[in-house]
Amino acid sequence: MSAHERARPEADAPSDCFAFENGALSACSRDLLGEEPLGIVLDGEPVITLMRTPGHEEDLALGFLLTEGLIRSAADVGAISFCREGVAGARNEVRIHLASGVKPARPLPAHRKVYSSCSVCGAEMIEEAAARIAPFRRPAGRIALGDLFNLAEAMKASQELFKRTGAAHGAALGMPSARQDSRPLVREDIGRHNALDKAVGAAARQGIPLSESLLFLSGRLSFEMVAKAARAGISDVAAVSAPSALAVALGRTLNMFLAGFVRNRMMTVYSGADALRAGNARLSEE
Amino acid sequence: MSAHERARPEADAPSDCFAFENGALSACSRDLLGEEPLGIVLDGEPVITLMRTPGHEEDLALGFLLTEGLIRSAADVGAISFCREGVAGARNEVRIHLASGVKPARPLPAHRKVYSSCSVCGAEMIEEAAARIAPFRRPAGRIALGDLFNLAEAMKASQELFKRTGAAHGAALGMPSARQDSRPLVREDIGRHNALDKAVGAAARQGIPLSESLLFLSGRLSFEMVAKAARAGISDVAAVSAPSALAVALGRTLNMFLAGFVRNRMMTVYSGADALRAGNARLSEE
Repeated sequence: MSAHERARPEADAPSDCFAFENGALSACSRDLLGEEPLGIVLDGEPVITLMRTPGHEEDLALGFLLTEGLIRSAADVGAISFCREGVAGARNEVRIHLASGVKPARPLPAHRKVYSSCSVCGAEMIEEAAARIAPFRRPAGRIALGDLFNLAEAMKASQELFKRTGAAHGAALGMPSARQDSRPLVREDIGRHNALDKAVGAAARQGIPLSESLLFLSGRLSFEMVAKAARAGISDVAAVSAPSALAVALGRTLNMFLAGFVRNRMMTVYSGADALRAGNARLSEE
Repeated sequence: MSAHERARPEADAPSDCFAFENGALSACSRDLLGEEPLGIVLDGEPVITLMRTPGHEEDLALGFLLTEGLIRSAADVGAISFCREGVAGARNEVRIHLASGVKPARPLPAHRKVYSSCSVCGAEMIEEAAARIAPFRRPAGRIALGDLFNLAEAMKASQELFKRTGAAHGAALGMPSARQDSRPLVREDIGRHNALDKAVGAAARQGIPLSESLLFLSGRLSFEMVAKAARAGISDVAAVSAPSALAVALGRTLNMFLAGFVRNRMMTVYSGADALRAGNARLSEE
């Protein structure tokens, strides 16, 4: 077996990946961006749980209160502290106390995204998802590289809103076994989540089996994007941009195929490389 | 005054913009991506209000229910209808009724983002923001083009997480009057909103006056991003990518400076072009 034909490699060690470049798949290692939940608690009341990259937590919490109009200025804040681990069970939580006599500038928003426990960590989110979603039992080798790259190119060609405005995200669903002349289902939206939801909803209404579809996305793969795909029964996801570490952890836990940086018929495979068809790595022969 | 020196032009007609290319600012017209709220109502109960691009509303609502795990399959749905205008006061609303005897697959999420009225439109969101935020009284001509482009380049050079992972958004705050050797404040995060909030919070903690700062963002300018900046007192916002139509409408209503497609020392100005310094359009002389 030549290097060109290397296929169905395992990819279960953290941050170990496979790069497909110049017609060959080879093992590689990639830095992955951190993504963890962070609870913001204002005068003892949970305000929101954000998915964020660790670092600068106090900046984030103070900035959130300012940009959401909950405080007028930094002078409204009396004390601010970040707890990463373990004080009285709190983790990943910023606690803010307003200065004496200060009240929030407006009521706490009704649109608060607060998880059951404000104090949660990424590993627990993976566990919770895994408790709801059974690991996928994908047939190995069902994705032909040519089909994946053709889907990416077909989506790009179909992104009419993006071409006109430069502001729209895209999501495409294709069948791995689709004939070359079948057109993928493409949806666009200003929001990545919405583009994905529109494509999933359209496929469901048209009776396209999601469990057999390959999802291609124009943006990056956050935890929530991969979780959305998984909840809808989609095991195979590829994207133009990079995944987060938590998204890769979820994909590996659920036995998903995850690829990022799909550009110019190259890509990085973060999970489930066995989904790629053996002997299919030589694009020049397709 | 030569074409090169054209400055302080008005930009208040919808979709009329100014392009800065090849060292000169000139009037242009740009298609802007639509962004409007959409309420999703499940068996009479509001589930969420999304900011989305109009089109394919029933796909979006059905897909949302699937990817959030609220239904098991499209067969769970009995009826689905989209109301854009005016039936019994409902607008921008998708109503879904589950099939007879079907219950949601899990409880409605606690993290529902539902506006006071589920049935709202973009114009009302602009009105609501304008009722809370007074239009900015910016001094004209306070942004030197060179400072803006230098801020963009300084942010790019500082995006360490992006360089390593390709997955991080960036936000930078610079003072228009900053000396060339002063370093801008740069923050990174997997989320655009978080990167903005981190930069704002850091500036507030360091005593950097937000009302005099120029905010530069790596992504696109949705309504919420512009609203966040405005609530924090930032009137001047520039970004690598494009704004939505609603974001531009908000920026114009609040007399903000909004620029997009800031790339390779070129940009498109969507609002408040008077903020650019007269006689400053000739980059070759800087």
